[in-house]
Order: sequence, then structure tokens, then C-alpha cells
Amino acid sequence: MIRVGIFGVTGYAGYELARWLQRHPKASLVWAVSESAAGKRLAEVVPGPLDLTLLAANQVDWQTVDVIFTGLPHGVAAKTVAEARQNGVKAIDLSADLRLDSPAAYTRWYDHTHPHPELLNAPYGLPELNRAALVDVPTIANPGCYPTSVLLGLAPLLEQGWWQTGQTIIINAASGVSGAGRAPKQHLHFVEAHENYSPYNIGHTHRHVGEIEQELNKLANAAVNTIFAPHLLPTQRGILSTIYVPIQPELDLAQIHALYRERYANEPFVNVLDQGQLASLAHVVHTNDCAVGLTLAQPGMLIVTSAIDNLLKGASGQAIQNMNIMFGLPETTGLR
Amino acid sequence: MIRVGIFGVTGYAGYELARWLQRHPKASLVWAVSESAAGKRLAEVVPGPLDLTLLAANQVDWQTVDVIFTGLPHGVAAKTVAEARQNGVKAIDLSADLRLDSPAAYTRWYDHTHPHPELLNAPYGLPELNRAALVDVPTIANPGCYPTSVLLGLAPLLEQGWWQTGQTIIINAASGVSGAGRAPKQHLHFVEAHENYSPYNIGHTHRHVGEIEQELNKLANAAVNTIFAPHLLPTQRGILSTIYVPIQPELDLAQIHALYRERYANEPFVNVLDQGQLASLAHVVHTNDCAVGLTLAQPGMLIVTSAIDNLLKGASGQAIQNMNIMFGLPETTGLR
Amino acid sequence: MIRVGIFGVTGYAGYELARWLQRHPKASLVWAVSESAAGKRLAEVVPGPLDLTLLAANQVDWQTVDVIFTGLPHGVAAKTVAEARQNGVKAIDLSADLRLDSPAAYTRWYDHTHPHPELLNAPYGLPELNRAALVDVPTIANPGCYPTSVLLGLAPLLEQGWWQTGQTIIINAASGVSGAGRAPKQHLHFVEAHENYSPYNIGHTHRHVGEIEQELNKLANAAVNTIFAPHLLPTQRGILSTIYVPIQPELDLAQIHALYRERYANEPFVNVLDQGQLASLAHVVHTNDCAVGLTLAQPGMLIVTSAIDNLLKGASGQAIQNMNIMFGLPETTGLR
Amino acid sequence: MIRVGIFGVTGYAGYELARWLQRHPKASLVWAVSESAAGKRLAEVVPGPLDLTLLAANQVDWQTVDVIFTGLPHGVAAKTVAEARQNGVKAIDLSADLRLDSPAAYTRWYDHTHPHPELLNAPYGLPELNRAALVDVPTIANPGCYPTSVLLGLAPLLEQGWWQTGQTIIINAASGVSGAGRAPKQHLHFVEAHENYSPYNIGHTHRHVGEIEQELNKLANAAVNTIFAPHLLPTQRGILSTIYVPIQPELDLAQIHALYRERYANEPFVNVLDQGQLASLAHVVHTNDCAVGLTLAQPGMLIVTSAIDNLLKGASGQAIQNMNIMFGLPETTGLR
Repeated sequence: MIRVGIFGVTGYAGYELARWLQRHPKASLVWAVSESAAGKRLAEVVPGPLDLTLLAANQVDWQTVDVIFTGLPHGVAAKTVAEARQNGVKAIDLSADLRLDSPAAYTRWYDHTHPHPELLNAPYGLPELNRAALVDVPTIANPGCYPTSVLLGLAPLLEQGWWQTGQTIIINAASGVSGAGRAPKQHLHFVEAHENYSPYNIGHTHRHVGEIEQELNKLANAAVNTIFAPHLLPTQRGILSTIYVPIQPELDLAQIHALYRERYANEPFVNVLDQGQLASLAHVVHTNDCAVGLTLAQPGMLIVTSAIDNLLKGASGQAIQNMNIMFGLPETTGLR
Repeated sequence: MIRVGIFGVTGYAGYELARWLQRHPKASLVWAVSESAAGKRLAEVVPGPLDLTLLAANQVDWQTVDVIFTGLPHGVAAKTVAEARQNGVKAIDLSADLRLDSPAAYTRWYDHTHPHPELLNAPYGLPELNRAALVDVPTIANPGCYPTSVLLGLAPLLEQGWWQTGQTIIINAASGVSGAGRAPKQHLHFVEAHENYSPYNIGHTHRHVGEIEQELNKLANAAVNTIFAPHLLPTQRGILSTIYVPIQPELDLAQIHALYRERYANEPFVNVLDQGQLASLAHVVHTNDCAVGLTLAQPGMLIVTSAIDNLLKGASGQAIQNMNIMFGLPETTGLR
Repeated sequence: MIRVGIFGVTGYAGYELARWLQRHPKASLVWAVSESAAGKRLAEVVPGPLDLTLLAANQVDWQTVDVIFTGLPHGVAAKTVAEARQNGVKAIDLSADLRLDSPAAYTRWYDHTHPHPELLNAPYGLPELNRAALVDVPTIANPGCYPTSVLLGLAPLLEQGWWQTGQTIIINAASGVSGAGRAPKQHLHFVEAHENYSPYNIGHTHRHVGEIEQELNKLANAAVNTIFAPHLLPTQRGILSTIYVPIQPELDLAQIHALYRERYANEPFVNVLDQGQLASLAHVVHTNDCAVGLTLAQPGMLIVTSAIDNLLKGASGQAIQNMNIMFGLPETTGLR
Repeated sequence: MIRVGIFGVTGYAGYELARWLQRHPKASLVWAVSESAAGKRLAEVVPGPLDLTLLAANQVDWQTVDVIFTGLPHGVAAKTVAEARQNGVKAIDLSADLRLDSPAAYTRWYDHTHPHPELLNAPYGLPELNRAALVDVPTIANPGCYPTSVLLGLAPLLEQGWWQTGQTIIINAASGVSGAGRAPKQHLHFVEAHENYSPYNIGHTHRHVGEIEQELNKLANAAVNTIFAPHLLPTQRGILSTIYVPIQPELDLAQIHALYRERYANEPFVNVLDQGQLASLAHVVHTNDCAVGLTLAQPGMLIVTSAIDNLLKGASGQAIQNMNIMFGLPETTGLR
């Protein structure tokens, strides 16, 4: 039995993680930390079936766990991961703190110096692209939600070299409100977000651009330029990225569809839809799946629709998938 | 042209008021106050078509308006109304500050001493019950949202003496989230309120109980005991009260329906539905109407369903209706 | 491994059942029937992770399953259960066909003669009230969604005799739209149901009244009169019953709370909330739990708030719980 | 007083039109047609404040109206417009039947021969682009909802020649569910559409592509190639188009913003947002406005966000605006 601790369990991703660990036959939640609610029972803070007493960070006993998950703000997360390592405990970080490859990139996108640059060597935990690097490692950088949807939607094409090198890839993305976190804010008020749909940080400014382009560059083995336009959806969860990719003009849809089907043939969590089908939130919410649809808009222009549940494949489900790999379990354990 | 000022224009009721005043052919918004956003343009604070510069309370010129509307927290509202009166300006108060008949009742339900008890002689502005008292007065207490739905749903029955005196009336009510105000709070976060439905302050504790029972007592000319159970609905707006009333057992539905139809025959904003129809939010949202449905559950037990838009008939629409009466205009002016 | 067949898998309850069976370590879905979509793959009909080929009813091989679940319209379900019995296969029926105790009651509430009255001896599958009767039986009547919320909310009080015999119990209930089924209808159109909240079949007319009163009578060992007022909520799922119960006037809340806590102390799926807490949909959606809150409105009047997920504890989760009991498995198997 | 008839009043656009005509000081609804509900009262079919008796098409008296609005399916609408013309009644058509310039284009996009090609000379009723052509005419083609958002979002740029001729413009659009019509369909069921977000007809296949490119070509005086990707949003109403436009690389945002502000300076219903602001549904729902936001993603790539209420500026509000122009009224009459 893998013994697990969670930091930040009252956040949406932390809570989802605790909920799914209940179903995991080989892992067990030993304790959970919430700085803001330490001493309370979880059921007092989040209505629902989970009812353990929350700890403050300085109350945890590192000897009782094998791995921690950190659902903490960037900057804070790295310090907790560092402490886990000092105590010989593995860590899967759901924040952005381990994702970028260099301290400079981190500073550019997160506006402060990385507190533990030595942690940036953690492998990027997108199993479908990077599985071999995740086995038995001490730390894993759990990918961002938007990047997961984009990278799984584009990987086969870029690996194969079928996109038009040098052309801009336009990513029009939309996320449910849980992606914006649990802290109350004006624009997250029910009355403001309901019956609304609003773009934010569009262009090349959202923090996930750094992560997306870093990983796309590796897939393409070239510099990939993106435009990234996220929108806030009036849903609790789910991400859909509608991606406009300039491709080699001679490619037809059947070829591309075959490429995706083959690339993901053995991936339990990637669902390449039939030709003619488009990915939607309904395909994926409350699952760890990524659904991918392919549309040839005109010769040379492919539209990829890629959907995930931002709290599962975009956060906690993927974190459990990474834990399974890290500890040598079958990858789907506890994720159905 | 009636010259209007609004205090608290960035709240949901204040904004709705400003929006409908745009449509009013005989009234014009001169200035609007928002303490928290003074100096900004309204369109910067609330996305939408209204674009005037917001004032602080101490910047207003009282000479330029004939009447103010106060969409302010209780306690604060009374002070603003008092200032208006000192400046010879009429006031329609959307808070609870003018609604209760005695300082003692106010203290009981609002936990502090009334700052201006002399203002408690303002008439209760529910035109369908109290029209004559509203003409040409200096101040009007605009009713609460829940009380409006309950009082219009029960008035014919209680006036006629057809309820079972001494028996408890059970009011199961539900309101859209705008009823809880615009300040961000955890339980109003989109993710918490969406796909949720939750009771709060049920029993005999919600502040509107004092107002409801005060006015029911007048209608019945007797002490009316209620149980009041409000619930938060995952909608932006709308209130439905489902009211269980013990009545004289010999009454049949046709008699009761005829009574309601007759009582409200000349009321432009009360829609007594056909027999067999039930009131719903869809009947009333974005209108100043109250829809009333009548169901005889069994002999001696009537179920009244009474629906309003909490921001219109439950707040700003009713306030404009009151302004129309106060200034001698046809009551429906600007309210279609 | 329990081998399972589902009839009606494209309905909301049938699909939810198939989804949760994926997580069940001791049961496996062998085939699934959909008359309307026979020959198609399930993923073509319902977007999501389930992808098996659907059968017509006359294509099933009864030898390959141990138990079937019937998510079919009333009238049809009984015929399928009868066929299962002829083939020596157990059946858990999610329709109303096995729930009522007499053919006469069935005819009264469902407007047609029961096609297989011999099936009405199936035990009523609410494990918390009736567990002993469910072990190793050939058929189980899975309870209705509203009845489950009401019966669990009232059982301790009625068993203990603490209600006011002869007084009417008022049940104000609200359900998410999945409770109305998957067939497209005007009032279930997104635009009609969203931002709406509407009562229907209120009084003593909804078909669940027969089932509710039949089971309440057994609990109370007396005739229980109810008023039942269901409402359609703008949510996908969830039921909240707000129940107004006249009780012995000398009882205080602490006594009642202790009674409920003791009664449900060993029940894994009933969550008696702390004093002061009220049940909401957020407590239970996507779980098999029933959350119960207790409020003493005034001496002699208790308000019970009882929440379930209509698709889980109100249908498919309870059906799996019943299967677990029927086959001697721990009751929570596959339900976390 | 302009005397108005409506065909198709029980559809979402027809009903919205009737609702706003209530507010119009110079127009009055004389009769309304609904083939499916002829003989019923409107309030029986659509819950709400409108209560007139519905006619069948063959019952209307053409002498009693000056103008009709047709909210009918394509193909049917043209026949009704033709009949109006034979009776000397003006017509504003909300269907697609008058929008395309040639019978061939109509056949290509709507799959059948145009029943009255002589009606295709009706002017395209987007007042901000085409006002002069609308005065005193007998018929107006009311634009589609998506085209309105796109054309107002792009007009200044294309008129000025600042886009990159020959480059593809990518339009990622999203619409509330009322855009799909009132007939119940599986994918419009509340449970399917809620918590969902789904692309449909993406690429170059949606029928509005013909209309969009026809009008863009006129603005640009060149052939404009678009990719158009609509999505279904879980809202009742509202459209947001996020448009990716290759522009001259030397242009900066201030220049573009100044161009838009100048172009629309006198337009009462176009709201060019401040630099840095992005258009959202909240800016426009329940108004006749179009909100336009401008973002320079990188040199040579502009993102235009353009929002309207699909039922108002995208249908009925624009139809009233067109009526105002047609009859020489101030354009904003009845539209605040």
C-alpha cells in the first residue's frame, strides 16, 4: 500500500485527489494539510463524504508517507517538495514549480526567482509523451491543465513532422471555473460567471504559454510559435482546446486519423474519436480521459479538438497516473 | 422628468434599477454613487451598456435630484435617507431600514439599534396591498424580495379569512444567487453554487420572517405563525415560494381561484395563473410580474406557488413602480 | 466475478450503472441492451468512455449473466424481469414495477394492470431499512429516487414513534433534470430548464406518493398522510427533500440528533450531519451517500433536509449496493 | 403607430421580438402566428407575460398590419414574405431566405432551390454597414447571428485594408443554446448541454459561412477566406466570436483601436471597449449592443473579440432596429 499525504487538500484539485484515492486499491491517504483550515475536519470545509482532520504543514509526520502531492500556489509548492526530499519522501507537484526547464523561464513566466532551482530537473509527467522518464523517480512535475489538452492534441502531428514548420498554431481554449481556483473573486461569483463566457489573458501572455511552447518545441524538435486564447466557461469543470494547425497541404484526413490512432493505440486514457466526431466536455468530465477529434477544415489546415477534465487528466487524475508509474503499478489502477 | 440619484449602483439591485431607468420615459438618472468604485466609470466595474462616472457619497449635489433610491446595507441606508430628507429629496429605500414598524422589531431582527427611528413611519411599498398610502409621500420602504412573493401569494386568502386561524403556514422558498449580494463569498463561488441547491437559515431565523409576519398579521388581523425555509438556487435571479396554507376545509379550488382572480383583476403586475398551472421562475424573470398558482392538495390544504424576479418585483422594478405612484404617474410606466 | 447484463443502458440510470460497474472489483458488465440503439456502439450514443456494442433484447444470451439490471419504463420492466426469472437469472429492477405491494396499488398509480403480479413479492431494496430481506433473493425492487430521500430522512423518527400521529407530513422536494429521463421534451430543453425552477405534480398526485406512503406506513405502523411537492431544478442531478414533520412538542434537537446518529451509526452511506448543518446537493452528488440535516423550527416542528444523488443512491448506486447484498459481498464494494 | 404582425412567435426569436415590441412606443403588435399552436393563448405555450391568442397563417388579416417579421424556417419564410408583398405589407425576414445574393449561393448552402429568387434583392439589414439601403424599402434581410458578430468585429479593419489580403481569417465562435432553436432535440436536452461545451459544423461547413464570406468580400473588396468553428455554450443566449486576423505587421494596437473608435463613433449599438478589455457575453446579454475588444497577440496578428446577444442584436433587436430605419424612426427607439 502506497502511503500518501496531500498538501492543499481543500483546493479543487487537492479535494478531487483525495476523493479518487478513496477508490485506489493500492494507495491510502494518511494525512492531508490545509494551512487555512488546520484543525478542522475536511467535511466542515468542503461538503461531502471526506471526513478527516486537517493538519497544518508543520504538524505532518514525514515518516508515515511514501509520497506527497502538492496542490499549492507556485513558489510555496517548491519549498514543500524540497522538504519532502530532505525527508526521503517522493513528491508529485501539481503546481507549476517543477515544470519549466530553467530558472530563467520560471522567472519570466512567474515573476519571481525560483526558490529551489535544483528541483527543475524533475521529469515532466505527461505519461503518454514521457513515460519512461517517470519510473521510480523521486519527483514528478505534474503538467498544467491547458498544456495537457494541447500537447496530447498535437503530439502525433509534431512528432511526425506533418505540421507546417514556422507557421503559428492558434489555440482557442476554454476551461470550467474550477480551473481558476477556490478563492472567492468577483469574476468567479456565480452571478458573474453564469450565463457568461469570457476570454482572458489572450494572445501570448497566459502563464501556460511557457510550458506549452517548451514541450511543443521538444516534440517538434523546432521552435513552435503559438497564439493561446483561454476563455472562462460557465461549467464547474472541463477543458476544450480547439487548435488550428497549419499542416502539409497534401495530407488527407484519413492519413492523419490513422496516425493518431496508431500513436495512441496502447494509451488507455487517450480516446481518438471516429472521423467526423468532435471532442466535447461531455466525453471526458469525471474521467481521466483525453478525447481528441480531427477535422480537416481545408487543405493545409487541421482543426484538433482536444478535451479533458481539468481536475482529472488536467490535474489529480494525471497525478495518480504518475504515482502509479512512479511506483510500478499498472497505469490505470484506481482511475476507472 | 423625474430626476433620480442612486446610492449603491454597483450592487445587483442598484444596477438593475439604473438599467430600467434607461427605459423610463419620465425619469432620468442624474448621478449614481458607489463608495467602493468612486471615480471609476460604471462600465469598468460592471460589464455592460451603462457608462457613467461614479461618485462618492460626499460628492453628490442634492439640488439636482428629486428622488433617490438606496441600494445600501441596512444601517447605512437609513443615514442616507435621513440626509436626503434634510435636503428635501424624496427617498425609496431598498434596504430593510424602513420596513419594520418599531425600533424594537428592527433591533430584534437586525442586531443593532436603528440609527433613525423617526424614519420607521415610512409606508410599506407593496402597491397591491397599500397603494393609497404611497401617493406623494416623502419616503417609501421598498419590500424585501421573499416578503413580496409571500404577501402577494397569501393576501386574498388572509384578507378573506379563509385560512385556518392559528395554524402554521409553511413557506418553502428558493432564490437565485443575486439575492445574496455581489460581494464574493465562498458559498457564492460559481463552483460551489452551480449544480448545487442548499437550504439556509431555515425555521424561524431568516431576517425576512419579521417583515413577513408583521405584514401577514395586518392582512389577517390576527397573529400569523410561519415556518420559513429559504434555499439557494443555481440561477442568477428569480424567487419561487411554495406555500402550504391550512384553509377552511369546505373550500374548493374554483372558489379560491375566483377570489384571487377578482382580488387582482386590476393589478397589472399580478398574474393569477389558470387553474392547473403552477408558477415558475420562467413566468417572471426579467419582468416586474408576480405569477401565482393555486393547488388544492387535499381538503383544507392549499399550496400557493408564487414567483417573482427578485431583482425586479422583488427590488428594483417594485421601486420604480413605487416611484411612479409617488409622483402620480401611471403605475406601469417604464416597466414593460 | 458477478456477470452482469443491463437493459436500458442508454438511459441516465443505465449509463451511470455501467460507468460504476467499471470500478467494481467483483462484477463485470457482459452485455448491455438498448432497443433504440441496438447494433450501435455505446460511445456513438452517449459521448464518453464506454464503448461496447449494444444489443436488442431478443439478442441476449441469458446463460452468460448472473444478474440483470432493468432501467426500463414501467410495464416493460416487469416483462423483462419475468423473462430473466424463467432463465434462472436474478434481477434488480430500477423501474417502479416491483415496488408496490399489491396489484391494486400498482393500477391506481400507474394506470394499467400489472403484467406480472407474481413479481410484486420482491423485497423493497432500501438496505438501511430492509437489509435482511435482500440476501440471496432472486429479485429486488430498487426504490424510487424521491422515496429514498424521504424514507431515509424520516425512518428514525417514525420507527421511534416521535412524530405526531395523524398529522400531515409536508415534503417539499427538488430534483435535477436527469430524474425526468433522457427523452427530449419541451420542458427539458436546455433553454426552458436553465435559469428556471418549477413545481410539477404537487399535492398528492405524483406517482411516488404511493410508494412513499406504503413504506412510511410500515415504518410508523400507522397510516401516514403526506403532501408531496416536487420541483424541477436546473441541475443535472441531485435530490433534496425538505420535510416538515410535526413531532412530539417536548422533544429537543439534541435528542433527535442522537436518535438519528445512533440509528445510522453503522450505515456506510448515511451521513447524519452535525447539528446546525443542512443537507445540500453538494454533499452527495457523485456519491452513493444520503446526507441528513435536522432543524427544530419551533417546538413540535422538525425540518429534515435529506439529499441524495438521484442517479446513485436514488437509482444505480443503490442498485449496486443491492447487488452486493444479494451476492454476499461487502456492501460498499465498488461504491467509493 | 406601426402595426406589426409576427410569424413564428413561439420560437425564441419571435417571442423575444414580441416582448420588446411591448416596450416600443411607436409600434404595436396586432397579431401573431404560430402554426403549431394556433388557437391557443401564447401564455399557454410560453410561460410569461404575453397573452394573446395565436393565429394560423391562413387566418391573418393583411389589412391590419404595416409590416411583418418572419421567424420561420428557411424555405417557409420566403413564401410568407412573398405573400406579404402581394398584400402590400412590408417584411423583415429573420430567416436566411433573403440574405444571399444569388439563387446559386442559396442552393449551395441550403440544399434546395429558392422558392422566390426575386426576393433576393432585399438589402442586407446590418445598419452599421448598410444603413442607407434600408430606408423605406419593402423588405429587409435580417442578418444571421454569427455573421452579425463577425462582420461588426471585422468591418473597420477590412474597409481600411489593414488585414493581410489572402491570409485566412480564423473565427472561433460560441453560442448559447437558444441559437439552436426551440424544437426539442437530444443534444439540446438540459442534461446533455449543461456542464458541456461542444464544437459543431467546424471548418467551412456551417451555413453561415456563405453569408459571412459574401459580406466580408464586399467589405474587403476582395475574396476573404475564413475558417469558421462554432461551439455550443451552456448558456441560454449570447454569442462570442474570437477572431484571429492576420494584419499588416507594422500596425500597433493604438492605431487599430483608434480606427475602430472612429468608425463606430456614432453607432449607438457598437461598444468598442477600452484597450485591454475583452468582450464577453456579460457585456451584451439582454441588450441590442455589440461589444468589440481588440488584442494584438503579436505583430501581424490581431485577435478581435466580438459579443452580441444572439436573440437581440443577432435577431430580434436588430429586426426592430431595421424596422425603425425602414419607417424613419430614430434607430434606438424601443431598444433600451
